[in-house]
Amino acid sequence: MIGRRGLSAAQSTWRNCWASPARQQQRTVSTKILSRRTTIRDARGQGSGARVAVGGWVKSVRKHKSVSFVNVNDGSCLGELQITLPAEEAAAEALGAKLSDITVGSSVFAEGELREVPGGKQKRLELHPNTVEVLGKCDTQSYPLQKKYHSLEFLRDNLHLRARTNTFGAVTRVRNALGQGLHSYFQDNDFLHLHSPILTSSDCEGAGEMFRIAKIDGKDEEFFGTPTYLTVSGQLHGEMYACALSKVYTFGPTFRAENSNTTRHLAEFWMVEPEMAFAGLEECVSSAQGAVQHSVAHALETCAEDIAFFNKNYDKQIAERLETVVTKDFARLTYTEAIEILRKAVAEGKGKVSFEKKPEWGMDLQTEHERFLAEKYVNGPVFVTDYPADIKAFYMRKNSPDSQNRETVAGMDLLVPKIGELVGGSVREERFEVLEKKMRHLGLIPEEDLDEETIASADGDLDWYLDLRRFGSVPHAGWGLGFERLVLFATGMDNIRDVIPLPRFPGQCKH
Amino acid sequence: MIGRRGLSAAQSTWRNCWASPARQQQRTVSTKILSRRTTIRDARGQGSGARVAVGGWVKSVRKHKSVSFVNVNDGSCLGELQITLPAEEAAAEALGAKLSDITVGSSVFAEGELREVPGGKQKRLELHPNTVEVLGKCDTQSYPLQKKYHSLEFLRDNLHLRARTNTFGAVTRVRNALGQGLHSYFQDNDFLHLHSPILTSSDCEGAGEMFRIAKIDGKDEEFFGTPTYLTVSGQLHGEMYACALSKVYTFGPTFRAENSNTTRHLAEFWMVEPEMAFAGLEECVSSAQGAVQHSVAHALETCAEDIAFFNKNYDKQIAERLETVVTKDFARLTYTEAIEILRKAVAEGKGKVSFEKKPEWGMDLQTEHERFLAEKYVNGPVFVTDYPADIKAFYMRKNSPDSQNRETVAGMDLLVPKIGELVGGSVREERFEVLEKKMRHLGLIPEEDLDEETIASADGDLDWYLDLRRFGSVPHAGWGLGFERLVLFATGMDNIRDVIPLPRFPGQCKH
Repeated sequence: MIGRRGLSAAQSTWRNCWASPARQQQRTVSTKILSRRTTIRDARGQGSGARVAVGGWVKSVRKHKSVSFVNVNDGSCLGELQITLPAEEAAAEALGAKLSDITVGSSVFAEGELREVPGGKQKRLELHPNTVEVLGKCDTQSYPLQKKYHSLEFLRDNLHLRARTNTFGAVTRVRNALGQGLHSYFQDNDFLHLHSPILTSSDCEGAGEMFRIAKIDGKDEEFFGTPTYLTVSGQLHGEMYACALSKVYTFGPTFRAENSNTTRHLAEFWMVEPEMAFAGLEECVSSAQGAVQHSVAHALETCAEDIAFFNKNYDKQIAERLETVVTKDFARLTYTEAIEILRKAVAEGKGKVSFEKKPEWGMDLQTEHERFLAEKYVNGPVFVTDYPADIKAFYMRKNSPDSQNRETVAGMDLLVPKIGELVGGSVREERFEVLEKKMRHLGLIPEEDLDEETIASADGDLDWYLDLRRFGSVPHAGWGLGFERLVLFATGMDNIRDVIPLPRFPGQCKH
Repeated sequence: MIGRRGLSAAQSTWRNCWASPARQQQRTVSTKILSRRTTIRDARGQGSGARVAVGGWVKSVRKHKSVSFVNVNDGSCLGELQITLPAEEAAAEALGAKLSDITVGSSVFAEGELREVPGGKQKRLELHPNTVEVLGKCDTQSYPLQKKYHSLEFLRDNLHLRARTNTFGAVTRVRNALGQGLHSYFQDNDFLHLHSPILTSSDCEGAGEMFRIAKIDGKDEEFFGTPTYLTVSGQLHGEMYACALSKVYTFGPTFRAENSNTTRHLAEFWMVEPEMAFAGLEECVSSAQGAVQHSVAHALETCAEDIAFFNKNYDKQIAERLETVVTKDFARLTYTEAIEILRKAVAEGKGKVSFEKKPEWGMDLQTEHERFLAEKYVNGPVFVTDYPADIKAFYMRKNSPDSQNRETVAGMDLLVPKIGELVGGSVREERFEVLEKKMRHLGLIPEEDLDEETIASADGDLDWYLDLRRFGSVPHAGWGLGFERLVLFATGMDNIRDVIPLPRFPGQCKH
């Protein structure tokens, strides 16, 4: 055993090693300077006369007779910081940089004093540096992002660089804020974050849509002993934990092996799925409204500049729409009312309202119907509840038949303008007998006359799901939100491939 | 088009529908009562005389002559709330429940008044209910969790019910707290949460360890057009975004198709991987310490009762160890010093210190060495930096050769007692020429003499990774933390399969 003194000696050796030749030979600015770095967001918030060190990428260079203005961004905010440099090569070199190396896309590190830009109407700070260093040059000929404007299509072909543009920087910040807003809503409301598994042996939602893990290379053997899939939803696992700890939520990637090449679908996307015990449709609806409002409010608070950017460049109504979302209760309709509204709209619309698919009780609502309800009828988010049992999943809790003897379930969808369905949820069938009958009918659990051993060894058997109702069952409810759809909704962007860092869809899994 | 008035009418119809027969026929307590539910954690914090409604699962029933004590837990905390019921069947039934239905594992909903338990030394509240309802019965004969004590092995066979035990409730709460502590550290320090992809076409870390997605059913075709794998790390994608937006972190599932049946490995586990531009080893080390301290501090603050439970039942040193972690700086050694310390320990240990693998410069540290350093030498977390270049990944930044002309990289591992490696990180090689040479040598990018078209179409090509250095390269650094290892460290649990909701390992992917 070596005592404390040994440790101290070792530690002091360690500290000295920072001054070793290895460190000094780093070509770039030393870590001692890097650690003094201020984000550009924080620098912009400081007063004239403050001394700061900033690092970032050059967005534009404007050369005038006596000065050069170099605009730099570091991703901490949409805005840039203007660095004022002497126009003369020798004077610039005295600061540490060759002017010809400071080009769009190059990275710089500058230290100096913030001063007010003279003559401007708005108070704005610029940096007068004592030192400027070019950390990484950027060849103007070969850099793909040279041009001022790039189409979103072009940027989808340059996925690894698109985060350097204003649009994708803003998307990343808003996406981050929306995610944190969701976390803080759930944490503030007694939900525990549950990391539900990605790999699963249960293929209950239809194996055709699920990605499957390949067998072990060169063998006809499964790594896990059973066929294994990528999850399509964490709901069932959420129920497992809600039926023990009351309130949980998942926030993780989910997968669909569907051949959908649309602006609304991805093969890999993120879902948020809360599940609550001791809850009914009322809690389901109110928590969905609360979570969406809290999330959007957090984005409005922390990304005002980004939202203003989207409002100016992508969707002139986005700022107003988001303000309404956070301040007003969402509208609510039953499915039966929604169908009536749609039929009436066609009948009274005098040809101005028409749908590809005629609205009729019993059908699933199509995006055209959902958007009509959210955009034309409500002009804002609207919950539709109590859907026909036949078009909804087996786990949704059956209502008693309605006055016309039609069967509905205690489910809800949240529809929003531009997107259609943002959230789908329901009360879960907690009655053992009702659920068992339905699952047996659908072949989700084996036939009753099998012996127990066969049942226990059946792959993907959902008997455990029935156990949650067999032992201390509780009324419970939950919902799922497609996170990328929320990002679309909050940014006004049109294509889901533009609101996730690396989009995966049929035919593309780049990088 | 239908106007505002139409909407109001529809909404009022909707509101009325809550009182419809469908709702009233729910067998269990109505949602109106459920929404008045207080968590048991909050109920325990209230004063005597407060009226509350609580729901939960029965943990124990003690029948006395005149009263029955029913202890109930709802997962909001480790502690239980005692409900005091009359011992007489008729009196209990007048409150709404059959005493014989209130068994361990059944779920109940009770409303009444909190009163101080008479005669106790510690002030403690119990619930005197006006109504009690059994929501879900639980057959004492068939319920697997009947017995008082269950081994962790037994509970691993009953994964879907184990969250109902004290241990797994506590693990879930601490895991939640540690995750939120990490999020809040990163959010407070200007990191953006990045959802790096799970599906990836790059197999650069060695395809042998990666799960591969099966081809489309019945066809010899890849869904994405290229062989697709499950990610082993989000680091490269983290670098993509850090080289645009400065500071990002991933927090998501990662996968290893290794046949490791140990208490430290899973096939699916969660990793936290921050990546920082304008950063060196110093920032790497200080952010790792900051994140771990912040995370553990959040768990200590919000899960004191759970930590005390682990301290009592699983590891008598855990509370003290965690307190030290959050209050003291972590120790630091270079790899070269660590080897010297290990060699000296063997030499001076007089047979009391021995290792299976003899410590020698150039070898990778084994868990036995890591634990010796963290447990015996430091007795706490310790960073080891500057490893030999040959044993570390291609992307780590090369130091200048040391005094003995040995090559090292600016990498670091954080070693902690009981676990060994908790964090691994490094400065990334930002020099284009150095990195290109190394990647070509390793076959990660095609040979130079290929034509450009062939290079561009190569599957899993990492040329994009070089682009980050080609255009505005910046010094950057990052690290990865195995989240389950942090949960092990913070709970004192021994087996990694017990700190993730649904463990996946060779041969098992249950539920």
